[in-house]
Amino acid sequence: MKKTLFTIAILTIISCQCKHHYDSTVEEATIRQVLDDQVSAWNEGNIDAFMEGYLKSEDLKFVSSGTVRQGWQETINRYKTNYNTREKMGKLKFDIIDLRVLDHDDAHVLGKYYLSNAQDSVFSSGHFTLLWKKVEDNWVIAMDHTGE
Amino acid sequence: MKKTLFTIAILTIISCQCKHHYDSTVEEATIRQVLDDQVSAWNEGNIDAFMEGYLKSEDLKFVSSGTVRQGWQETINRYKTNYNTREKMGKLKFDIIDLRVLDHDDAHVLGKYYLSNAQDSVFSSGHFTLLWKKVEDNWVIAMDHTGE
Repeated sequence: MKKTLFTIAILTIISCQCKHHYDSTVEEATIRQVLDDQVSAWNEGNIDAFMEGYLKSEDLKFVSSGTVRQGWQETINRYKTNYNTREKMGKLKFDIIDLRVLDHDDAHVLGKYYLSNAQDSVFSSGHFTLLWKKVEDNWVIAMDHTGE
Repeated sequence: MKKTLFTIAILTIISCQCKHHYDSTVEEATIRQVLDDQVSAWNEGNIDAFMEGYLKSEDLKFVSSGTVRQGWQETINRYKTNYNTREKMGKLKFDIIDLRVLDHDDAHVLGKYYLSNAQDSVFSSGHFTLLWKKVEDNWVIAMDHTGE
């Protein structure tokens, strides 16, 4: 009886230690991959694929140009309205300035975006801060603040 | 011997469960208090006291107007240069739009600031996103992205 209890206790300790264990190097690489995939999607003119990097929920918040947009649908609508031609979309590039895996399901990224035209001239750029959430094993952007 | 090991195991389980336990309501209230204190300090013209809300380290990042300032000293220098008179400082007000305690030592805030003059007319406003870190029992802003 005591032996069983002791084994249960040891197993509980191990599972308790492991429950929220994560390898920040692995998580960071996954987040960078999501951002790389967004850049590829954008540069193929595919806003639907680009939007895969965002939390598909009413909880998503997108802050830009003095406005807070609420939810995935409102965010994709904004992108499709503001970037309704390949010319307006241009060629996207991200510089990741700071990436922090905060815990097993939260992360934060500071970066800079650049949009350039066919002549490789940057016509739009700015900084963004992103709050990430791991949902069902996928890292997605839960809040995006894009500005100057 | 077995009894001792069993007791140690049980105590380890309890301490393991408690180690990162936190009450998000309590943490949220503390963060709101830091922001309230910042507003009070600002409205007394006390930038040094206002800066108490920030991580006092080279790691602090302050993103605004297309620039990333690095470190506490550079951030206070910016505030003291841009707001070198009470008139420029105006009267500060914060609206907290979203506050998330992510874990025992990380939090995120989305808000809006307003600066108004003696006639209660707003002359500057914008959104900010803040990444918070609990350091030695104090919640401080580790990254500030202030924009439109």
